[in-house]
Amino acid sequence: MAEVTVIGLGEMGAALAAAFVDGGHAVTVWNRTPEKAAPLVAKGARQADDVRAAVAASELVVVSVKGNDTVLALLEQAGDALGGRTLVNMTDGTSADARRVAAAATERGAAVLHGQIMTIAPGVGHPDAVVFFGGPAEVYERHAPVLALLGGRGALVSDDPGVPTLYGMAVHGTMWGTLNGFLHAAALLTDAGLGVERFLEHADASMSALVSFLPSLAQEVDRGAYAVPFGALQHHLPSVEDLVRESGDRGIDTAFPTYTLDLVRRAVEAGHATDSYSRLVEHFRGR
Amino acid sequence: MAEVTVIGLGEMGAALAAAFVDGGHAVTVWNRTPEKAAPLVAKGARQADDVRAAVAASELVVVSVKGNDTVLALLEQAGDALGGRTLVNMTDGTSADARRVAAAATERGAAVLHGQIMTIAPGVGHPDAVVFFGGPAEVYERHAPVLALLGGRGALVSDDPGVPTLYGMAVHGTMWGTLNGFLHAAALLTDAGLGVERFLEHADASMSALVSFLPSLAQEVDRGAYAVPFGALQHHLPSVEDLVRESGDRGIDTAFPTYTLDLVRRAVEAGHATDSYSRLVEHFRGR
Repeated sequence: MAEVTVIGLGEMGAALAAAFVDGGHAVTVWNRTPEKAAPLVAKGARQADDVRAAVAASELVVVSVKGNDTVLALLEQAGDALGGRTLVNMTDGTSADARRVAAAATERGAAVLHGQIMTIAPGVGHPDAVVFFGGPAEVYERHAPVLALLGGRGALVSDDPGVPTLYGMAVHGTMWGTLNGFLHAAALLTDAGLGVERFLEHADASMSALVSFLPSLAQEVDRGAYAVPFGALQHHLPSVEDLVRESGDRGIDTAFPTYTLDLVRRAVEAGHATDSYSRLVEHFRGR
Repeated sequence: MAEVTVIGLGEMGAALAAAFVDGGHAVTVWNRTPEKAAPLVAKGARQADDVRAAVAASELVVVSVKGNDTVLALLEQAGDALGGRTLVNMTDGTSADARRVAAAATERGAAVLHGQIMTIAPGVGHPDAVVFFGGPAEVYERHAPVLALLGGRGALVSDDPGVPTLYGMAVHGTMWGTLNGFLHAAALLTDAGLGVERFLEHADASMSALVSFLPSLAQEVDRGAYAVPFGALQHHLPSVEDLVRESGDRGIDTAFPTYTLDLVRRAVEAGHATDSYSRLVEHFRGR
């Protein structure tokens, strides 16, 4: 008896299918290029001949492919086999993409969750792996024990299937900012003959503290109340100026710190000198 | 008997002086506008009439003013009173500024440390407050018990007085990257009617994990070896594209994610598709 179908056996889809097989479930798989199913079939999965048969095989159908236009085409191929199924769309895209797929699958009689997995393929199934789910609570709860095989930190974050995508983007967007800042710093350090690993050993407490500031900034944004007694934009300004000057002195990229300098300087000039850095959210809102 | 002199009683200098007074030391203070000394005199500090007298009063002289040109002018005023003193320069600037001050004070017969404090004024003296020191080990060790009053996590990071500044910039540069990424994300979330505090509650594990990636990136940079089996630049690319698309769909700033997209796309096009994100250090080096 098949319990889970996985459609799409790229790096991530294959990892999802393997986690269900390893969790003791009967798994049906389908992939556009059928050869990719071989390692999973060798582990005990059953390979469906077409999308319709794959969807018909299990009540729970997980889709992980490249792009939500592909998901919409697959739903077309599945036709009325979707009726009564639960579709868990784990395909990356925008929140609008996730909602469009959810609406199309709902129209075909399926219950729908969107899942955003926050790890690379080898992390799938790890107790620390985070998965954000969006959709109706009763649908999530019905499948939570099976979905928990994908990551120990799965959670329903909203009844809106667009929200997991936004949460994922918020984490990744923060990550890219962190990585860009860190690698600019790494360029400065290594240019001065300093090891980056050695720096991190000394700066461990300071670096760990970076993330600990975020809840207070989140509160400021949620309340729209930015005034702070210490560490205001006027205090950031000379330090960012120093970073631009140091970078210029050494022939290291100045564009990256100058971007921050412009943001901070414009906010200070606009009268926000004594506001928290969180005031810059207004810039990103495009106001 | 005066044991520590603090020159410069801005927000930070005043906090440093207060930490020494609270630690039971006889403290002499001086500030260009003498009124600022009043709260410290009320706590038991002695106010010097001029810079020369302030430097003459104590073996350990801490300077925290605005800009290292000001420090150089103060050294001029102190004249030969600097002979046999230990100067701890805690004035912000570039690494070249820190080294210039160290050279000038050494020439006048002082031993020199540079100190970079990684907290805002109310955090001075806290057991978790980080201070990076640079200078000769024997000078640091001689004064370590007194300097420990400034923060529980003080450490000598180099014999080069320019290094604390670089370490401070590396932490702050990473911080600004993190904050910019987070506030762009906050704009996306709040535009969709989602609370940022609520997001952080759900994403706590993912956000804490961001900093945990840094040691492996540091190792890649230090070794100049960027190839990775998973999570390579080619996997970042479609996710950054999604973030740019989502931002554009909603009228949220696209310049910030497009900056990242350009970096990643150019690195992929230059043949680094299967390299780690850390490969982008080469961009910041300006090569």
